Amino acid sequence: MSVRVGIIVTGTEVLHGQITDQNGPWVAARLLEAGLEVAHVTVCGDRPDDMAAQLRFLTEEGVDLIVTTGGLGPTADDLTVPTVADFCGRALVLDRALEADITAIIRNWRRFADDHELSPALTAAIAKQALVPVGATPIPPTGTAPGVAIPADQHRPAILILPGPPRELQAMWPSAVTVPAIAAVLARGDDVQHRTIRAYGLSEADLARTLRRAEADLPDFAALEVTTCMRVGEIEIDTRYPSSADPAYEALVALLQREHADQIFSVDGARLDDVLAAALSDRTIATAESCTGGLVAARLTDRPGSSAFMLGGVVSYSNEVKTDVLGVPAELIERLGAVSEPVAAAMAEGARATTGADIAVSTTGIAGPGGAVPGKPVGTVCFGLAIDGRPTRTVTRTFPGDRTMVRTLSTTFALHLVLGALTGKRAE
Amino acid sequence: MSVRVGIIVTGTEVLHGQITDQNGPWVAARLLEAGLEVAHVTVCGDRPDDMAAQLRFLTEEGVDLIVTTGGLGPTADDLTVPTVADFCGRALVLDRALEADITAIIRNWRRFADDHELSPALTAAIAKQALVPVGATPIPPTGTAPGVAIPADQHRPAILILPGPPRELQAMWPSAVTVPAIAAVLARGDDVQHRTIRAYGLSEADLARTLRRAEADLPDFAALEVTTCMRVGEIEIDTRYPSSADPAYEALVALLQREHADQIFSVDGARLDDVLAAALSDRTIATAESCTGGLVAARLTDRPGSSAFMLGGVVSYSNEVKTDVLGVPAELIERLGAVSEPVAAAMAEGARATTGADIAVSTTGIAGPGGAVPGKPVGTVCFGLAIDGRPTRTVTRTFPGDRTMVRTLSTTFALHLVLGALTGKRAE
Repeated sequence: MSVRVGIIVTGTEVLHGQITDQNGPWVAARLLEAGLEVAHVTVCGDRPDDMAAQLRFLTEEGVDLIVTTGGLGPTADDLTVPTVADFCGRALVLDRALEADITAIIRNWRRFADDHELSPALTAAIAKQALVPVGATPIPPTGTAPGVAIPADQHRPAILILPGPPRELQAMWPSAVTVPAIAAVLARGDDVQHRTIRAYGLSEADLARTLRRAEADLPDFAALEVTTCMRVGEIEIDTRYPSSADPAYEALVALLQREHADQIFSVDGARLDDVLAAALSDRTIATAESCTGGLVAARLTDRPGSSAFMLGGVVSYSNEVKTDVLGVPAELIERLGAVSEPVAAAMAEGARATTGADIAVSTTGIAGPGGAVPGKPVGTVCFGLAIDGRPTRTVTRTFPGDRTMVRTLSTTFALHLVLGALTGKRAE
Repeated sequence: MSVRVGIIVTGTEVLHGQITDQNGPWVAARLLEAGLEVAHVTVCGDRPDDMAAQLRFLTEEGVDLIVTTGGLGPTADDLTVPTVADFCGRALVLDRALEADITAIIRNWRRFADDHELSPALTAAIAKQALVPVGATPIPPTGTAPGVAIPADQHRPAILILPGPPRELQAMWPSAVTVPAIAAVLARGDDVQHRTIRAYGLSEADLARTLRRAEADLPDFAALEVTTCMRVGEIEIDTRYPSSADPAYEALVALLQREHADQIFSVDGARLDDVLAAALSDRTIATAESCTGGLVAARLTDRPGSSAFMLGGVVSYSNEVKTDVLGVPAELIERLGAVSEPVAAAMAEGARATTGADIAVSTTGIAGPGGAVPGKPVGTVCFGLAIDGRPTRTVTRTFPGDRTMVRTLSTTFALHLVLGALTGKRAE
């Protein structure tokens, strides 16, 4: 029987869709890693009645742990601690040590001298944040809001209260999971492994066929819980399994690598950016972009330390920049159009010549919604790949979706084009 | 008394945090616009028991409408319709007309001739998707999954079932809200206006002070529900109010514009990208980017039709590209460092010279985590702005946060730097 958890995310801005919650997904991932089952995630605003209703609901559903995020600030509409305390029938008491800690943090932030008198409003705000339900364990704050862990009793699950700012929550997690009330629940988690395989250019249908073969042929395949997820052209194969099924998982990896050798680019969880950085080794790269408008370069400079391989690039949105900066012959553009493989080739070669990079990749296409011409619908994108000592390659793809989707899919494709050339695979 | 709504988001990937839900926020925004109150959002996986529990919970909480998203696919783990039908005590019946519609959609997608025999598996999948609870109204699919609207009865609220793919859901919304069972609930929504003001360079503390003045001075201010939200340097001021409080809202806008004229860049909901595109008018722009690595150019080409003003740019990540492509004197870089205002100025001027644009903006900074030098901590970014006929401007800022945050804040700053120069405001 799995240990089940409910997560309550608080905040009117999240409930109203004005900001995207990062805490629910982050906490869920940590709990899954610990072998717990996430049964429900609920979102509530700043109304204590709605939060109390969600606490009751999760308790009636028999979860073993409730994690709440947010609502710990110093203002009156930050109601998580009093609402949870009331739900648990526990009085709130002022934790003097915690009060002193928060005061020290605030004095330090504001660079107040030790004898500086704090305003009554600030003193009251600190005292509010230092209130802890009787019998609960405070979790030291990394901002000013401490967390709280409340042990399970015969009527209620254990409850872990964490702050809303993702950076504070994540920094407090390691100490939260060592509080005995919480550690006791996590210790009952299933022994679970979690692995991720990533592929590009693999259709869901082809993958499904291989997984059916695995189901038929591999002993103990049933012990593997495989989920697949498409993400802008890449496919992610997530598997959860008990350690005892390790041989079955290894057999699955071997089968997938045999069947889809060209498409699988990562079996250890590494992402494209890291795999590409490793494959570049000591080679340098540059970009020439039209329809992606800088997204490929932005992606290549996303990783810390990318200056080791990324020299730069040219966003040649207008035809004049293609000609003047990258040296694409104007005649070529006039004759074949800017969205053509010869222009893509000239752009990539121009980027190499301009920057002196070993490798250059180019994009020129029709991101839409306008700009389609006969034979070149919206989504048509030509790519060029120039590598020192090799003939320049070009390829054309037609991507589905709106402008943002076409640009995003083109960016991913460009990076996989480079990776494939470096590793000898042809996923694209 | 407000009309309250609950939203159930289904999908194990959302529950586990593997993909970010877009539907809950989108549906919440539409319901708020209609003057309804979003009370709870709940997320459940593919377990019918958990979904049934959430349906019961929302019903017991007395909501007037439940909207579900996802779980309408053709496979066995897509369980929304049978689970909701069971909850409502309504049998499922095959809707022949719907079955014919879905069949036609699939034939058209696969370009099957009319006499092409569909496989039994496909026929069964279509039949599953054409099952509708007795007394419910199907909502025509835009993909293959129809929605369903079930009228309220004395024990249960009205329920609107929508598919998971955001594009399908959004395309079906207009017809969903005209189904009488749903329209009846929406018609009871409060008469509510929703307006957004956007500002840059305005601190939350300064805004709070102005709002306190408004509270003290403006008659009927209490009728305005004002929420403020920081987003990468910009501040969004959302106000909801009944139409009768229109004069109060106009008075608030006038006060804010008087107090924060330089910071407010939009009072009609328009976003930075649109405001900037309008301000550029018929002038052209180019970029020269180091630490932002293409993000400014990508943002400037994000809008359809951006080729009207965006000529292109140079990502000069290495010093050699700064020198060779943009003409930044090597001596300047050697003497002052690449992260310096004179280099930023030379980059912007070089981008103008290279592309022939009327305006060029540049970024050079330390995005981190490495690269800090004495006097230039991580987050230090220099900007240059060259405009035809004006002296080149430079400015240095130190941004907080990690690499991604520094790059994002720098990108927003660069665009506001351009906007301020064009509108005569100095928000930054």
